Parts: sequence; C-alpha cells; structure tokens
Amino acid sequence: MTRLTVPAGSLFGPANLPYGVYSVAGSAPRTATRLGDHVVDLGVLLGETGDDAVFTAPVLNPFMAQGHDRWAEVRERIATAVAGDIPDGAVHHIDDVTLHLPIEVADYVDFYASEHHAANLGRLFRPDNPDPLMPNWKHLPVGYHGRSASIVVSGTDIVRPSGQRKGPTDPAPIFGPSARLDIEAELGFVVGTGNAMGEPIGAEEAERHIFGAVLFNDWSARDIQAWEYVPLGPNLGKSFASTISPWVVPMLALDAARVPTPAQDPEPLPYLRMDPPWGLDIALEVEWNGEVVSRPPYAAMYWSPAQMLAHLTVNGAPTRTGDVFASGTISGPEKSQRGAFIELTWGGTQPVTVKGQERTFLQDGDEVVLRATAPGRDGSRLGFGEAHGRVLASKTPRED
Amino acid sequence: MTRLTVPAGSLFGPANLPYGVYSVAGSAPRTATRLGDHVVDLGVLLGETGDDAVFTAPVLNPFMAQGHDRWAEVRERIATAVAGDIPDGAVHHIDDVTLHLPIEVADYVDFYASEHHAANLGRLFRPDNPDPLMPNWKHLPVGYHGRSASIVVSGTDIVRPSGQRKGPTDPAPIFGPSARLDIEAELGFVVGTGNAMGEPIGAEEAERHIFGAVLFNDWSARDIQAWEYVPLGPNLGKSFASTISPWVVPMLALDAARVPTPAQDPEPLPYLRMDPPWGLDIALEVEWNGEVVSRPPYAAMYWSPAQMLAHLTVNGAPTRTGDVFASGTISGPEKSQRGAFIELTWGGTQPVTVKGQERTFLQDGDEVVLRATAPGRDGSRLGFGEAHGRVLASKTPRED
Repeated sequence: MTRLTVPAGSLFGPANLPYGVYSVAGSAPRTATRLGDHVVDLGVLLGETGDDAVFTAPVLNPFMAQGHDRWAEVRERIATAVAGDIPDGAVHHIDDVTLHLPIEVADYVDFYASEHHAANLGRLFRPDNPDPLMPNWKHLPVGYHGRSASIVVSGTDIVRPSGQRKGPTDPAPIFGPSARLDIEAELGFVVGTGNAMGEPIGAEEAERHIFGAVLFNDWSARDIQAWEYVPLGPNLGKSFASTISPWVVPMLALDAARVPTPAQDPEPLPYLRMDPPWGLDIALEVEWNGEVVSRPPYAAMYWSPAQMLAHLTVNGAPTRTGDVFASGTISGPEKSQRGAFIELTWGGTQPVTVKGQERTFLQDGDEVVLRATAPGRDGSRLGFGEAHGRVLASKTPRED
Repeated sequence: MTRLTVPAGSLFGPANLPYGVYSVAGSAPRTATRLGDHVVDLGVLLGETGDDAVFTAPVLNPFMAQGHDRWAEVRERIATAVAGDIPDGAVHHIDDVTLHLPIEVADYVDFYASEHHAANLGRLFRPDNPDPLMPNWKHLPVGYHGRSASIVVSGTDIVRPSGQRKGPTDPAPIFGPSARLDIEAELGFVVGTGNAMGEPIGAEEAERHIFGAVLFNDWSARDIQAWEYVPLGPNLGKSFASTISPWVVPMLALDAARVPTPAQDPEPLPYLRMDPPWGLDIALEVEWNGEVVSRPPYAAMYWSPAQMLAHLTVNGAPTRTGDVFASGTISGPEKSQRGAFIELTWGGTQPVTVKGQERTFLQDGDEVVLRATAPGRDGSRLGFGEAHGRVLASKTPRED
C-alpha cells in the first residue's frame, strides 16, 4: 500500500481530484484522478465491479452518464480513499503515464461569451460601426457548432491547416497554408447528463447537468475563416483542431470559484435569468514559446455556463453525455488579458515581443500552452494541467 | 424458405437494395435491406458470424467501417441471396416492422450547394445587393456544422421550437414559439470510412469514402435563425430537428444516376477540380398535407458530393464513420422546384395554395413528406422511402 503526499503549492491537492484517462506502456486506457504528482487508477482505488465498472472504461462517459448524485458520492469516496493507504497498483507517477482524451465528445458548440473579445473583433472587422457588438449579442449567448472529431488532448501536434483565402485586393482566392494561424484561450464545459429532445434544461437546473471543465484552445486560421464565414459562420477556419487539457475538473471542485457574472444589462429574457448568474473565478495564462503573453480572466465572461446550456436547449435540441460547449475566447478589459493573438496584436498590426522576437501570428515550430488556476474549497489553488500544442508545417502545398 | 416477388413499379427492386435498421415487437433493432414490400434481415440472410457479425448491430456503423471493397462484396451477396430462397425468419412485411435511425451520426455538416437556393435567399435578404451570391459562393462549398443529436428518423414528430426573435421594428427581442417554421428538402450523404487528422480526402477519392445517401429535411425556424445568425451562423434556428429517410441508398446503387454537375465557372481551385464533377439525377418531391407543392431536382446542384467531402477535409479535419454531410436546400431554376417554403412563398409574401388553403409557413398539425426517385442500373427507379414529419404545438409558452 502507498500513502501519497501532496507537494506544497501543488494544483492537484485533495480539493481538486480531477478526472482523466491514462495508460502505462502495454495497458489499455483507464480512468484516473490525480493527487499531487501521481495519477491514481479509479478502477483499482474504488474496487468497483459489476454495474459500477465504469472506471475501467477508456473514457469518462459511462461514469458521467450516471448523473449528479453519483458524481457527488464518488467524489466523497475518492477523497476518503486517497487520504488513506492506496493499493500500489493504483498509483503511477505522472511522468510514467500517457494521458489520453478523457471523453468521447458527442456534439460540440463554441460560444462567444466574452464581451471584451466580441467588442475587440467588432472594432477590428467593422471599424465604421458605432457599436462594436452586434445587436443580438447582449440578448443571447451567440454560438455555433464545431467539429467534435478534431478535439484532441494536450500534447497533440497541430499541423498548420491549408485552405482558401482571399485578401480584399486579391483578384481571386488562393489555396495554401494559413498565414494567420491563431489560438483562442477558452474553457470547455462537459455535459455529464443531457436532455431529451423537446425538454429544455432550465438555467437553474443546468448545474446538475454539467460534469466539469477543461482548458480549451480553439486553434483558428483567421485567413481561412475570414473568406469562408459569410453567411453560415466558421467552418474550416476552426475545424482542423481544438486542444483540451487532459484533466476534467469537476464542477463540484469549482464551487469555491463561483462568482457572479458581470452585470447583464439589458436584463435577459426569462429563460436566461438567474439569481444571480454565476461565473467562475478562473485565472488563465497563455504561454507562447515559453513566455507568458496573456492572462485572461474567466471571471470577466458575460454569459455564464448555465446560461449557455439553457440557451442551447431552449428550442428543444437534445444534449448528450459527452457534449462539450466552450466559452469562446476569454479576454479581459486589459490588453494583457486578451486570449487570442488577433486581439493581442490588433489584427497583426501591433506585434508582441516573444522571447525577443516581434511576433503576430503563429510560426511553424511555435508552442502554445494554456494553464489555469482556480480557488479550491480549502483555500488551495486548483489546476487543469496544460493544453499544449506545437505547430507543425503544412503538408499541403500552395496551389492557385 | 420464402421467395420474394417485387411488385411492378416498386422503388425497391433488385437494383436498389438499400440499408436500414428495423425491429419487430419485442426484438432488438438489426440491420436489413428492403426488397419490394418486405424488409430482409441481413444477419439472417447472410448468416455471418464471428468478426462479420456487423449485421446484427443496431446501426449500420460497424458495417460501414469495413470499407468500400466490403460494401461492394456484400452488395453482390445480398443481390444473389434475395433472388433465391430466403430463410423465413429473415423476411418481414414492411407494415409489420418499425424502422429506426439507421446510423449513429458522428459529425454533421450542412452545405449550401444549390445556386438557385443561395441566389433566392440573397435576393430575399439582400435586395440592394447587385449580386445575389456572396463573393465566396462559387469558389467553395459553403457549409456549417449542425447538431448530430437532433437527427431523427422519418415519422418522428417535430415539436415547434421556441426561441428568441426580433423583427426589424421590434424594440427588443421576444421569446416564443417560432412563427416561421420551414423545411429544407435536401439529400444527406453518409461517410462510411473517414480520414485521419491531417490527411485530406481528394475529390477523386471521395467516392470510396461515401457509403450512401438519405433524404434529409433540415427543419428551420426562420425567425429564430434571422436574429441569431450574425456573425457565427445558424444555431438554434436549425438544431431542434432534422429528419432523414429510414433507408440509406448505397452510392453503388446510384451509379446509374450520376450526371455532370452544372458547369462550374470560375474553375474551382485544384483541390476541388474533377473531370468532371458528378452530381446525381435524383428527383425529389415535397408533399405538404398530402399535396405535392414542389419537385426539387438534385441534378441542378452546383457543388458535387465529392467536392463537398474534399472541401470538408482539405484543412486536415478528420471525418469518421457515421459523419453526415447534407447538400443544403435543393432548389431548381423554376418556382415549382424550390425546396424551402421561404423561397416558395417568397419570404411569406406569396402564399401557396395547399388543399385549398393559402399557406406560407408551417402550422401545428401540418405534415411534410419528402420522397425521391433515381434511375437504377436496370432501367428501374430507386426510392429512399419517406422523410416524414408532423408539426406538434410548442410546449414552451411565449414570454417577454
């Protein structure tokens, strides 16, 4: 048996207990939690068999589908178990394991819930418009569906996408590797239990459906997106890859991080009202080639996670275990809080200095790491691990 | 043993042999084909066991994942088997079975591939614009991701969705049941085998990846869509439901229906070029409360199915077994060929007469049926069955 100690300052203390999926060489992926610098196999730790054998699955979906009461019960049992003697076979050092995509993603929707981000993009793309926000923006959480299959786990290399683009003065579109490859620092929320078609999830009940949160980097090819997106929205400018953290931090661990959202004015329609809507005091950082270039504050987000889920389903659309909805780029009011390079460099016109170099969009070989911390119930800080990706050169040559 | 005869004029003769999933009372869903007025259980018919036991699955995905060579081989074996004596336990009259959603849908993308539809909507929504098409439209197949979970099989009732809408003169948005509920008559294409991330499917190889086609009704709430869709595209205006036919007609059965697309001018970029791009000579009909109100011709579609799949993946985005990409509304050049009521009634300003009543958008209790036929290899006509839906009243009252 092993008794684990948590290093001082660890983001994976007993107030976190996130969920992930790991493997060691020669074995199949299984679910785990993390304590300090160790992963702990949940199948071995909890010793469940029979209909509870959800923890030996290669994804969290079977466990998530069991619902909120079960999540609460299991969290208590894990907390008790990791505080005592743990069977040796359950414990692996974090350096000895491979972490996998922890969920099988069902439908994926990306929102646009930061007022600062939406307003910055409005100023960049519609400079003549007196209001940088579109008329609908303060009435509903604007969002679009993205590609579930291209959600990958931290550490997966990102091949620079090719596609069509056309500048305003180009006579015709060209095809080639994106020249404006960008990131979007976001949080993703994982739906644990969904709703049947025709039965919307109310804003106040949404918290019982949301299992946890992940870091989410919505890699974006701005030149492809700009040419394709009218009138049906982003498609290939986004669909090539999104990177999530290997750890899903349970919403039950994020209780202590709840804060009211910024004031919502005008008052939303009744189906979006909450008393008050709660956001999350999660502090992100964006590291570019080893240098932190931005610190986006999730607490500044206008629309709350519960409002996003209520909106998604108010027309009767069904959600399922494994659905992911992401927040959209997290940007705060300050320049140093912008979560996308298109904002940080003001459309590429104001380079930032990264490791002594002036930079705008991503170059081949660049690495981006998202990290975040949140307050835990015991006064500690909780972490998500990293959402890390390295840009590889395009495999598809230019053609025109 | 049973020997089946095919009624004269049946759309399910031996040149069709579509795939579906059926059940009889008290039994689990299994895969089947259809011949004449009978469904034939593929597990019993082909007698496969072991690693070939894909036909007793409740969806077509395991079979589809086996790839194009296997699809061709199985199609020959089915053709031979249904021409001879069939084990009694394999045969059920179509009236004695329930037909189910035949595939587990992975990602779903809806295109916008009809020039007539795109131009009609351009004239309706941007009347001051001299070109009814957006600048990108003839350079790439415009499309967006939709909600996989809300794809339902023919016969599923459609509850009128509620959501936000705001007319141009309304001071603020209101919430309530959609007042402009519409259809879109489309074809959906089912991906049998996908591509790995970073490895695009070329236009000429796309046909080996596409398993078959279904009828597809992309129910649309025009008022919800109009308010929400800027700048990220349709979301709740579409995500409440899409209806597909219970039968997937194999692309191998649609060989005889191949026709060149309309001329593509300007010439597409190289990754979209084909010699020539092939469309499909499939004749649809839209029946509204028992009256045929439109006959959209799929042959008029500008972008081909192979071009749509090549475009979807050219940025390296992965596709999977069970992906569906739909064509977008099929509209021909004539008014009588428009596949959406918003076009047919010119934005609701020119009612059509349905069973003696002047009608614009859908009312509660309305029923819509899509049907289609295509030429088969033996000179017969092939069918898809129906994509049928009835509109039920909203369960969500108006609130403002």
